[in-house]
Amino acid sequence: MEKRSKIPEPTVARLPIYFRCLIELKENGVAVASSEDMAARAGVKASQFRKDLSYFGEFGIQGLGYPVSHLLDRISSIMQLNKEHEVIIAGAGNLGSALLNYPGFQKWGFKITRVLDNNPQKIGKKLGDITIEDIQDIPKNLNSSIGIIAVPASAAQQVAQTLIQSGVKAILNFSGKKISPSKDIVVRNVDMTHELAILTYYLSVENK
Amino acid sequence: MEKRSKIPEPTVARLPIYFRCLIELKENGVAVASSEDMAARAGVKASQFRKDLSYFGEFGIQGLGYPVSHLLDRISSIMQLNKEHEVIIAGAGNLGSALLNYPGFQKWGFKITRVLDNNPQKIGKKLGDITIEDIQDIPKNLNSSIGIIAVPASAAQQVAQTLIQSGVKAILNFSGKKISPSKDIVVRNVDMTHELAILTYYLSVENK
Repeated sequence: MEKRSKIPEPTVARLPIYFRCLIELKENGVAVASSEDMAARAGVKASQFRKDLSYFGEFGIQGLGYPVSHLLDRISSIMQLNKEHEVIIAGAGNLGSALLNYPGFQKWGFKITRVLDNNPQKIGKKLGDITIEDIQDIPKNLNSSIGIIAVPASAAQQVAQTLIQSGVKAILNFSGKKISPSKDIVVRNVDMTHELAILTYYLSVENK
Repeated sequence: MEKRSKIPEPTVARLPIYFRCLIELKENGVAVASSEDMAARAGVKASQFRKDLSYFGEFGIQGLGYPVSHLLDRISSIMQLNKEHEVIIAGAGNLGSALLNYPGFQKWGFKITRVLDNNPQKIGKKLGDITIEDIQDIPKNLNSSIGIIAVPASAAQQVAQTLIQSGVKAILNFSGKKISPSKDIVVRNVDMTHELAILTYYLSVENK
């Protein structure tokens, strides 16, 4: 097994896809899946699936396939999805509201516990079941290890600092503005514009 | 130069990152960048940057580096970002509203021209400058080649079919429900839950 930090990022990014496929298989009562089954579901090549898994150990049974429940438990543990994570959303606008109601979060153990904003018109109001709090007032040493930045680009860096000061260790950043890296903090930048650009790339390929 | 369809997906996914870095360099008046400069900005290894570019041709000048304007034009052309793309949003909820106002879209040439919904309470109302239209009424053969699905998971597949019937060739799917592939249609599924799971994976690595 290689050191976790050496595992290619695209492999890590495929783990949630495998996890989702395994949940579906288990729900459908499938006990054992071949790498070909798994790969077809996940939209990758079987060789890719086998290589991705090989970074984490040996999971398949020769001539039989992958025991679904066992592999599900292992990937769940590898990704830390075997426990609940408290999540803070910074930004109570449209995107923050959409994320608060995102159906997959709860199912996978992500529990949104706080929503923050700096707009006096919003602070104290309810968003779903959660009262919007003043971002200036959040205490230090919160239990939440994950923060989601859903504020405009201009505020992103400052909001990131505030979240980090409150104890957040991982940030999902939707602001479109890249956040400067901080020591021991994991940041993942999601840029919707990039997603559209990847689509237009493939459109040009399809039309050739 | 390899066939476009053989280019690894992670390479394609990094092209928008390089594109954004090149825009920044050009705005800062930088004429030539080394692969080390580019890689540091993009958050990849220099060898990775050079390998990614090598799929598309030779862009660097030996002993000098990469001419910023030229490389920007080439990546812009490769990704079809040298022309405007009309985009339809299906779903006038919080996520649709957030995407309508997403700052990067316009800058990169993505113009949202229609917002669709099936809710009679929303149809005919304005979202920004755009009047929400009944998804049942959209004409065939629209100019828009790109559709964004921002509807609940239960409606995603049917909305995808409607968009495809109206001439959409590429779909960005935020519903959290995977859409069945259709011939000649490019689909990119964005699942926010997967992004959080990737974060918790890296959190576990950091804590070791």
